[in-house]
Amino acid sequence: MREIAIIGIGQTPVSEHWEKSLLVLAGEAIFAALQDAGRESAEAIYVGNMLSGILSQQEQLGSLIADWVGTTRGVEAFKVEAACGSGAAAFRLALMAVASGEVDSAIAVGVEKMTDSLPIETNSGLATAADADWEVIHGLTFVSINALVMQRYMYEYGWEQDDFAPFSINAHANAVHNPNARLQFPITPEDYRKAAVISAPINLLDASPIGDGAAAVLLVPAEQLPLGMGAPVITVAGSGAATSSIAVHDRRDPLWLRAAEFSAKQAYHQSGVGPQGVDFFELHDAFSIMSALSLEASGFAERGQGPRLGLDGEIRIGGRIPITTRGGLKARGHPVGATGMYQIVEVVEQLRGQCGNTQVDGAKVGMAQNIGGSGATILTHILKSRK
Amino acid sequence: MREIAIIGIGQTPVSEHWEKSLLVLAGEAIFAALQDAGRESAEAIYVGNMLSGILSQQEQLGSLIADWVGTTRGVEAFKVEAACGSGAAAFRLALMAVASGEVDSAIAVGVEKMTDSLPIETNSGLATAADADWEVIHGLTFVSINALVMQRYMYEYGWEQDDFAPFSINAHANAVHNPNARLQFPITPEDYRKAAVISAPINLLDASPIGDGAAAVLLVPAEQLPLGMGAPVITVAGSGAATSSIAVHDRRDPLWLRAAEFSAKQAYHQSGVGPQGVDFFELHDAFSIMSALSLEASGFAERGQGPRLGLDGEIRIGGRIPITTRGGLKARGHPVGATGMYQIVEVVEQLRGQCGNTQVDGAKVGMAQNIGGSGATILTHILKSRK
Repeated sequence: MREIAIIGIGQTPVSEHWEKSLLVLAGEAIFAALQDAGRESAEAIYVGNMLSGILSQQEQLGSLIADWVGTTRGVEAFKVEAACGSGAAAFRLALMAVASGEVDSAIAVGVEKMTDSLPIETNSGLATAADADWEVIHGLTFVSINALVMQRYMYEYGWEQDDFAPFSINAHANAVHNPNARLQFPITPEDYRKAAVISAPINLLDASPIGDGAAAVLLVPAEQLPLGMGAPVITVAGSGAATSSIAVHDRRDPLWLRAAEFSAKQAYHQSGVGPQGVDFFELHDAFSIMSALSLEASGFAERGQGPRLGLDGEIRIGGRIPITTRGGLKARGHPVGATGMYQIVEVVEQLRGQCGNTQVDGAKVGMAQNIGGSGATILTHILKSRK
Repeated sequence: MREIAIIGIGQTPVSEHWEKSLLVLAGEAIFAALQDAGRESAEAIYVGNMLSGILSQQEQLGSLIADWVGTTRGVEAFKVEAACGSGAAAFRLALMAVASGEVDSAIAVGVEKMTDSLPIETNSGLATAADADWEVIHGLTFVSINALVMQRYMYEYGWEQDDFAPFSINAHANAVHNPNARLQFPITPEDYRKAAVISAPINLLDASPIGDGAAAVLLVPAEQLPLGMGAPVITVAGSGAATSSIAVHDRRDPLWLRAAEFSAKQAYHQSGVGPQGVDFFELHDAFSIMSALSLEASGFAERGQGPRLGLDGEIRIGGRIPITTRGGLKARGHPVGATGMYQIVEVVEQLRGQCGNTQVDGAKVGMAQNIGGSGATILTHILKSRK
């Protein structure tokens, strides 16, 4: 595969953007990425989005966004959907499009608009990420599926609720320094302990907030870049995608993210680095239990021992494997189809050294992992910085 | 780009499959394609689908289908959406995935389930292919948008309604010999003249029927194939994708399919053949007006002269440029997100010489064109057969 570089990034704050449409949000992120790269356009646009058809009565976002950003040449554009993994799916497809030689530059953008709808509509929309015939029909929501997994995990491995607190506390601590985060405030162990239960054992501070937002990058073949540029070049060193069953009860082991294991191994193999070579990890902490499972399946913790990394402080900036360095889903927010692209943008920010108080010193290798459903579709990407 | 071959095809009949779910339909097409190729699996599955979220309350079809067909390795799988162009979009992404080297075999499958819903639900779903803010809000449906285009076309170029009849008569004549077609009966000029008007000037026989169905192909690099096989090898010679504005009133010329022109030119350029080198053309006759516009923008007729090809018999088997040789959208049926994949499968059937009474003699080069919305997303593919 030809080497691909990310030469531009853009994002909107994650918020309740009642005054901005899907198009306006996507456009802001795309224009920011183009401006960041010093380019005027790209040959293709791949859009990651989950809910536009259901919540905005609008499909065919590819054409709509391509038209909105003014590509007079009518560039190629599609929407890609893999539930909450849609963002990274768009990134992977942009990557393959450029790698194949079919296009010489591509924008990957993730965009989602969730806060204009009634909560019941948004929850029904999110439930389409679960198995309609075998899960949703029994009244399961997306939170309750994760609650069942967390309960089982605590039972199997003997953890207490409080043991998950460091994941959320760390995410909030980092979001304080991210101007694009939805929840820019710290939380204490006391806050976590007192948080209202949503679906036992998951409480409000175990769960990520939804939101509206968009994030985008511009990809080109690395060979296009002039030699000897001052700024570091960010390249895609590894890309992996894998699936598991959607229905959690169909999995041989409901506490093991098989698709995380497979996609991470693929990304490790391509990039030539293993978990020990990764400087920081933007993982998919939709619920705190998913942080634990993701760390384990990706090789950072033993099976059942994910919470230990949090309790020992290893996930903080300066620890062995800093995670959610810009706030993660928990505090940056989780505009579902856009989340995977926020992760990629944040990895680039770290590799460029743009993260101020939450900068990972000397970061050269960053990993992002985006999850669709409760582990049904998982994509892992490893980016590297080189002079 | 490395040369890609299609080594397996599969399809279900287009029908009202009330007893079969999305999964069952997709599975039947995929298993048929694998069996046709003599293979047991593929490394990735790209799903073209438009309406599963809205009509079946189910997203994340990629994982769901990958799981259903029993890929124990948890292969990569996503859903791709470009309204009625979703099928060809899935094909193009499968093509780029294999061409990039990220995977060495890929299934592209288009699947749609439309007849279990109330007509009002299906129509609302289809309207998400139009511009929600500028078209649908005024009460336009998908048929009425096409009706406005047809009316304008007749006014500008002086055609009568009857001049469009050959498109529908030809499609039905060919569908009689396609066991997978939804409407396997011929129609007469008299039938066309008496057909009920749906949205003036479009009548029932100008419009394609919806339906449930799935179609799939298996793609591999051509270099994998053993030399000197008896059967012809079908390769992808050209692939193009382009967009235009979704809202028809936003186009400089509402009677010109810019995205058809751009994507066809791209496919011609890649394949080294022009319109004169194409032996038959599976075009997107969602409405008869679209047949005329597609023939013009793709270089088979002068501007405003598309109907002439029908009136002169040039679109029939044996004519200068046979179209809709298996019935087209009009008579094979239009399960929207699957349609683009039916077209690809049908081109392969012709190039293999499997079409019996509607076989295009000595067909070596076939073209397929799939349209999302009223011309917003258009993909053109050229396939070749070689010994």
